[in-house]
Formats: sequence, structure tokens, C-alpha cells
Amino acid sequence: MTTIVAQPLTADNFAPYGTVIELRDAPDQLINQGRCGRHHDVAQPDIVDGRAGISLFSSEAFTLPFQFEMVERHPLGSQAFLPLHRNPFLVIIAPDDNGTPGTPLAFLTAPGQGINITRNTWHGVLTPLAEPGLFAVIDRIGDGPNLEEHWYDVPYSVIRS
Amino acid sequence: MTTIVAQPLTADNFAPYGTVIELRDAPDQLINQGRCGRHHDVAQPDIVDGRAGISLFSSEAFTLPFQFEMVERHPLGSQAFLPLHRNPFLVIIAPDDNGTPGTPLAFLTAPGQGINITRNTWHGVLTPLAEPGLFAVIDRIGDGPNLEEHWYDVPYSVIRS
Repeated sequence: MTTIVAQPLTADNFAPYGTVIELRDAPDQLINQGRCGRHHDVAQPDIVDGRAGISLFSSEAFTLPFQFEMVERHPLGSQAFLPLHRNPFLVIIAPDDNGTPGTPLAFLTAPGQGINITRNTWHGVLTPLAEPGLFAVIDRIGDGPNLEEHWYDVPYSVIRS
Repeated sequence: MTTIVAQPLTADNFAPYGTVIELRDAPDQLINQGRCGRHHDVAQPDIVDGRAGISLFSSEAFTLPFQFEMVERHPLGSQAFLPLHRNPFLVIIAPDDNGTPGTPLAFLTAPGQGINITRNTWHGVLTPLAEPGLFAVIDRIGDGPNLEEHWYDVPYSVIRS
């Protein structure tokens, strides 16, 4: 078993795998008589042969160290996870290496951060670290196969930095 | 000034104006080795001449009684508000009466509830009741006029039930 240390999630370290959905340094526009900032078009759903829909995921909470053997990817659509709470959650991602995932990386979100995983990017399952594990998910609604799974020969274990 | 009593938000009382984004009684699908429920396609963005994007709104918090004179609508797109926290927020809606808004209604959300306001539905501005007033917003990204405002002659005041 290989141990992975979860890094704090940032726009830079997550950039090869997707977009961190978080406030910019300043809003793009002030609305509502100046009382609300709009941070415009922070992440873009990328959907092939279908449409973007809003679903909810309600997951059990996990604890660290977190052990996993599987990552998956969705060839036909990006997938955004928006926590409907302020608890950190774990994000597991793997670079692609000629069609199979390489060594995974783990990130830990801060309150107020969501993610949009780029289409066809290897990632672990949703891993909240506290109840309620409630997330809005913006992903592809459509028919056809949109899931590819890969099982590693040896499990990985994620620990906190 | 007319007083409006905020009602608890339910799928039924909000149905004429949009969709409540909340967990169904049971998930449509169990995923992640049975540890996560997917509540599939709970709300559908409805976008004309543009695309659905993910933005963030960061608003000041408001207190009740809350006084307002203005509602607005977006002819070219639905607008979903997903709270990235578990604090209730206020939802103000008005039925349309031949192109102008009628008497508004107010709803108070429960933790875990979001909304998707139907395209071209009169609504008040985002009114969180606690800090941080942080919301993911799924709405239309595109050019062209997509905002119509209406100012009531007399203000309304929203109170808690």
C-alpha cells in the first residue's frame, strides 16, 4: 500500500485536472445595489451528446486515513461538485498515462471551495469527511456509456498533511 | 407598506415559480459501492441563446423584517441558487400579471435546500440571512439583454412566520 499526503486544494495545483470553484480576488460585477458580488462563469460544464443538469449526491462521510483502489472517469462530460455545507472534502485525481491512470494525487478543500473536474479526467469517488455529505453535482444528463473504471493492483492510503 | 409572512419553502408551494433542489425521499441510484445516493436531474437549466455556466454570488446578509421595492426577471434563462452553507435564506417571488409582477410571496429555505427559478419568473434579489452569503449560481452565460426590473409603488416588508 502506498501512502498519499493530501495537499490543500489550490487553483494552481488542481489546474491540470479541473477548475477550483471559489471566489476570485474581486467580483466581476457588483449587483443588487452593490450588496452582492458576481464572480462570473467561474467554471464551464463541458458536455458531449447530452445536456448539463443539476443532481444531488448524498454520501456517507469517510475518515482519514482513507484507503482506495479505484478511480473512474467520464468521457462525455465534466462533473462539478458543489458542497452544500462548509466542511472540507477530499479530492482524488490521477493523471492519464496512455489510457490508464498514473499515480493518484489527493487534495483537501477549504470551506467555500467546489471543483469542476475536466471531462475524461481520472478521479476518485466523492469523499466528504463530515456529515452531511450533501453536494450539488452539475454533470451530463444523457444516455450512453459515460463511465470508465480502473482498479489499481495495490491500494492507496490518503493521509492528512 | 404591505407585510408578507415568509412561508417554509416546499416543492408544492414553490412549484409555480421553479424547482426546489432538495433530496428526494429516496435516491434514484446508489453509487460508489452503495455509499452515495444520486438524486438524478433534480433541476434543469433552461437557457435560450447561450449556455449554462457556474458562477458564484457573494452577498451581504440581510435581517428580517426585510424591506424591498424591486423584483426582476431573466427572459433568457433559469437561475439556480445553491447555498454553499447550511443557513436558511429568503426567497421572494411574484406571479406575473400581464407583464408586470403581482403581489409577491416569500419563502424561507431549510438547510440543504436550493432553488431553480423558472426562466422569466419575477423574483427578488438574493437574500441570505447569515454570513457568509455564498452561493453557486447556475444560469445563462451569453450576450444580450437578460434582465427586466420592476419597482413597486409601495415597498413590501417580509417577516418570519
